[in-house]
Amino acid sequence: MGFEYLTNIPLAKAREDYLKLLRSHGYGPKTEVIPVWDACGRVTAHAVYAHICAPHYAASAMDGVAVNAKDTFGATETTPITLNPDQFIVLDTGDPIPENCDAVIMVEDIVKNDDATITIHAAAAPWQHIRQIGEDICAGEMILPSHMTVSPSAIGAMIAGGVLEIEVIRKPVVGIIPTGDEIIPPCTDPKPGDILEFNGSIFSAMVRQWGAEAHVYPIVPDKFEQIKSMVAKAVSECDLVILNAGSSAGREDFSARVIRELGEVLYHGIAMKPGKPAILGCQGAIPILGVPGYPVSGIIVIEQLLKPLVDHWLKVPAENPQYAKATLTRPVVSGLKYEEFVRVRMGYVGDKLMASPLSRGSGVVSSFMKADGILEVPQGMEGYEAGSEVEVRLLCPAQKLENTLVVIGSHDPLLDELADMMHVDNSKVYMSSAHVGSMGGIMAIRRGEAHAAGCHLLDTATGKYNLAFMKKYFPKGGVKLIRCVGRQQGLMVAKDNPLKIQNFSDIAKTGVRYVNRQKGSGTRILTDYLCKQENLDTAAIYGYDREELTHTSVAAQIVSGSADAGMGIYSAAKLYDLDFIPICIEEYDLIIPDHAWDTRMVQQMMATLKSESFKEKIMALGGYTVENPGEIISLNGYETV
Amino acid sequence: MGFEYLTNIPLAKAREDYLKLLRSHGYGPKTEVIPVWDACGRVTAHAVYAHICAPHYAASAMDGVAVNAKDTFGATETTPITLNPDQFIVLDTGDPIPENCDAVIMVEDIVKNDDATITIHAAAAPWQHIRQIGEDICAGEMILPSHMTVSPSAIGAMIAGGVLEIEVIRKPVVGIIPTGDEIIPPCTDPKPGDILEFNGSIFSAMVRQWGAEAHVYPIVPDKFEQIKSMVAKAVSECDLVILNAGSSAGREDFSARVIRELGEVLYHGIAMKPGKPAILGCQGAIPILGVPGYPVSGIIVIEQLLKPLVDHWLKVPAENPQYAKATLTRPVVSGLKYEEFVRVRMGYVGDKLMASPLSRGSGVVSSFMKADGILEVPQGMEGYEAGSEVEVRLLCPAQKLENTLVVIGSHDPLLDELADMMHVDNSKVYMSSAHVGSMGGIMAIRRGEAHAAGCHLLDTATGKYNLAFMKKYFPKGGVKLIRCVGRQQGLMVAKDNPLKIQNFSDIAKTGVRYVNRQKGSGTRILTDYLCKQENLDTAAIYGYDREELTHTSVAAQIVSGSADAGMGIYSAAKLYDLDFIPICIEEYDLIIPDHAWDTRMVQQMMATLKSESFKEKIMALGGYTVENPGEIISLNGYETV
Repeated sequence: MGFEYLTNIPLAKAREDYLKLLRSHGYGPKTEVIPVWDACGRVTAHAVYAHICAPHYAASAMDGVAVNAKDTFGATETTPITLNPDQFIVLDTGDPIPENCDAVIMVEDIVKNDDATITIHAAAAPWQHIRQIGEDICAGEMILPSHMTVSPSAIGAMIAGGVLEIEVIRKPVVGIIPTGDEIIPPCTDPKPGDILEFNGSIFSAMVRQWGAEAHVYPIVPDKFEQIKSMVAKAVSECDLVILNAGSSAGREDFSARVIRELGEVLYHGIAMKPGKPAILGCQGAIPILGVPGYPVSGIIVIEQLLKPLVDHWLKVPAENPQYAKATLTRPVVSGLKYEEFVRVRMGYVGDKLMASPLSRGSGVVSSFMKADGILEVPQGMEGYEAGSEVEVRLLCPAQKLENTLVVIGSHDPLLDELADMMHVDNSKVYMSSAHVGSMGGIMAIRRGEAHAAGCHLLDTATGKYNLAFMKKYFPKGGVKLIRCVGRQQGLMVAKDNPLKIQNFSDIAKTGVRYVNRQKGSGTRILTDYLCKQENLDTAAIYGYDREELTHTSVAAQIVSGSADAGMGIYSAAKLYDLDFIPICIEEYDLIIPDHAWDTRMVQQMMATLKSESFKEKIMALGGYTVENPGEIISLNGYETV
Repeated sequence: MGFEYLTNIPLAKAREDYLKLLRSHGYGPKTEVIPVWDACGRVTAHAVYAHICAPHYAASAMDGVAVNAKDTFGATETTPITLNPDQFIVLDTGDPIPENCDAVIMVEDIVKNDDATITIHAAAAPWQHIRQIGEDICAGEMILPSHMTVSPSAIGAMIAGGVLEIEVIRKPVVGIIPTGDEIIPPCTDPKPGDILEFNGSIFSAMVRQWGAEAHVYPIVPDKFEQIKSMVAKAVSECDLVILNAGSSAGREDFSARVIRELGEVLYHGIAMKPGKPAILGCQGAIPILGVPGYPVSGIIVIEQLLKPLVDHWLKVPAENPQYAKATLTRPVVSGLKYEEFVRVRMGYVGDKLMASPLSRGSGVVSSFMKADGILEVPQGMEGYEAGSEVEVRLLCPAQKLENTLVVIGSHDPLLDELADMMHVDNSKVYMSSAHVGSMGGIMAIRRGEAHAAGCHLLDTATGKYNLAFMKKYFPKGGVKLIRCVGRQQGLMVAKDNPLKIQNFSDIAKTGVRYVNRQKGSGTRILTDYLCKQENLDTAAIYGYDREELTHTSVAAQIVSGSADAGMGIYSAAKLYDLDFIPICIEEYDLIIPDHAWDTRMVQQMMATLKSESFKEKIMALGGYTVENPGEIISLNGYETV
């Protein structure tokens, strides 16, 4: 088969042609009859008419007496009328109006006499205080038109109108077929080369959110006939079929051929990124969508190409996606030949909504989870410069963005714990943190992109942390430095230290594979400084250029055996059960710009930082010293670096 | 017991005190452990940490060959290097990196030689094209903080991180107890005095929309001990309990006493309308909310007083309700002593959002179904004048309002059919119609409150319909008159005409009970005109002042036997299987202001009006003549009335 990216169809055209083809084959909603009380959120197949009136009888609207109005004519304050027991009937709200009565007098307007008669001081107008038949709903009246979503009160109106079951649009069933020799069901101890099947769970959750049903089939190995017979089975059981993986041009790519043999392939290859290898196929009126294996590609493909089919089936106009204007913190470079979907993290800093592009690796499912929005770069556009104002499609309520603390800077797991505790303390407040190292954090604060930055920068001249950098990078002030924690930095090495690494200079020895942190991170600056002190030639250190973004990812490389040593904090080593050679204790502080100080988010962070439970949590992590967290550190008296 | 409206507590205070009391008794979320793949939309009880790294092994990010980078050093375009079969391993995307390899070269960058060696023209950097362990998620990393709603991609991230089940907040179970001797389960043939139980279905649907479970108990008669034991049972089985009906001060009011005997009553009587008789009670940490029996009161009470409790349990910050500025079409008069919730219908006419108050009867469940928003009139405010700009809480997406055709005027069931057909033809378009009679429609168009008005007004001077009224009320033009249908007006009388009514003057006979239409309706104007022609004294006609708003409600009174005759259209008589004495054929047309002409809604209405299927539908209703519907009627050459 070889490469067969036959097409590079613009996404909008592909979407339109696909729906047109499917409709020509008869694709569209099927219906079912269900009890009205189960119909909330469902869509009516046809108009619903009342069978009976509501109320279905003339009912008293008050507690009082029913009378014949003509018996009361002439009654006034000065000429009261007394009614005999056979001229009135006591009744409650909701009681039926007795025969020959045509008015109700409220209990408050009646004088009861001892002889069981009543006296009234005003005439009753015919039909007063009577709920007429059909006041709410008339038999034969249309209660709901076709293709309307049933609300709770519509359920009440239908029952009141004597409608006990209705025909609604059946939820379409989306069959999802995971394929691949390397794919295994979710487990906690996969072997190297195993890939956990979670796309089926993601896609199921997505289509359920759209109002469809999902059915995930067993994993099918990369065998043409097996895939073909599973797709045939799914086509016979479902309304739409997703064939996952195998749509790229790898060695074992059978998807397009399977679909072609069972039905037809409209397009293979869409001008979109991620998601280019998508296959738009069908068997008759059943769409078969070939979806790439990488989760992010798959999410984008089914959102862009499957959701319109589900919306069409459900007859609910797709909700207009919400867009917001945001300022890009970093440039986005895109290809001219495709429409690109860039995941961004967002937050308001001041009154400016900032959008930071996230990892574009389509295997990185966590990037989708962390995304607050999608920047859609149209086909034919090369991207945007940093600082551009762009329209971003929101994945979360705008309200959440307004309450999100944006933290950009040095990574420490305590930030995640802080985020957790803040949100528990105040459910309206969220934190979004990006790990770009201490210098990256300082720059983000300078550019007005963050509410806070974690920072641990050693001034080699004074041996003090952070203060000198404040003076240098914020010479005019405008920021506060907040004490957070002291933390133990050191070398993480494999359990029981098989290479017998004793001190920092050992990392340069032959046979030691080092794993480093990225440039600009406080830990990297510390590492470079230590190398200089030890007169080590960093170019000679194996793996010195291998950069990881967090302490935990450095630890993960060591525990997996692909590296022997790396600088990091004690809590990361402890988490991965690595040996730890302490090097120094550093001050990890938070920089907060004055303009953010009074925000609800920063104030909540300060409150949480000062709480006893924060201290307890941090001490339990290990490798930290905690002294007056939340204290404002005086910036006076320090020289610039 | 008598009246016991002990309190008139401001709503906000009641809400706050209630939650405070309940929390002091230990009210709050419970948790449960569920599989991750079922967790979409659920709320995490605690932070979720990854158990394994994702990827959990170093994996090739490309199809190509794995090499040891140092074997490739020095390779350039001019100094290619050839690798022996033992120096490289062919692998696919996702395959694990073999031992002793630390880089991947893409298949595109390799020249395969006949002797099974390969030649490369560039050195490989260590770790190029390798997905490092933990690139996506590191073991020990926090995937989700506490109290976060699980998204589809978070499910993927958790499975990738080896997390197969999580602790989430259990959905609180809301027990709903309907009470009342007159209440019966839903059916299609209730007897007079029976009231169909539908509040339980409405409340269930509401609490399910909020994320809770609902359990409706069997209907309990108005017997103190039976109610008490059902409430005790519900308290033992549920997390929150709604006791429906019996909270007002009628003869059979046991609710407050039941709650007091089982636990405590915080407040009975809240300064809100509807909903004043609400009872805020509890047994320990289980709230027991006494909810009035009228559906609209009940909806408002549980929305205002139960939802905050559910939100607190679920730990999801309540979504800020959406408000929109709107112009009131009619005055709203409210009491100073309570906060009032007025249901309004809304629509954009031009760029102005108009809000029309709906029926305030709290028994009228259809008014809630038809409401697009709620006008909240604060306690201490007497209301608003017509034309006031008010903030309205939206019950539907703003987007829907922008696409709603606002029709105000004379009622005809064909409008409902038109609404249905328009929406089927174009799912983005909705119609909202209010029945205020032909003159009411003309006034609404003049005030700029509607896109269209149904009108059938006879000019007695010319015997022509509508035209003269156009000249009179729109002397400067600015409107179009659109031909709709001819329709048969006549007298509706009971089946087989027991009173032998032969012609119009018979309605004045003794023993005939007439039911009329409201003043300003075309049918009323016609009726008044016919009375004048026949020299009838309308004051002497029994029921001439009894006014119904629609043809169908007139028919409903006759079929129920509470009236003997009423003017109306043939289709209404046919619907109720009444006898019909034809009087005349009238022209029912639509007035459309020029400013609305080009809207998507009016254009869709015109297209539907001109369609064959509209004609078929209308002819099937019976009693109509259809000739060129959608034609623009020339306004030239007619004199004013």
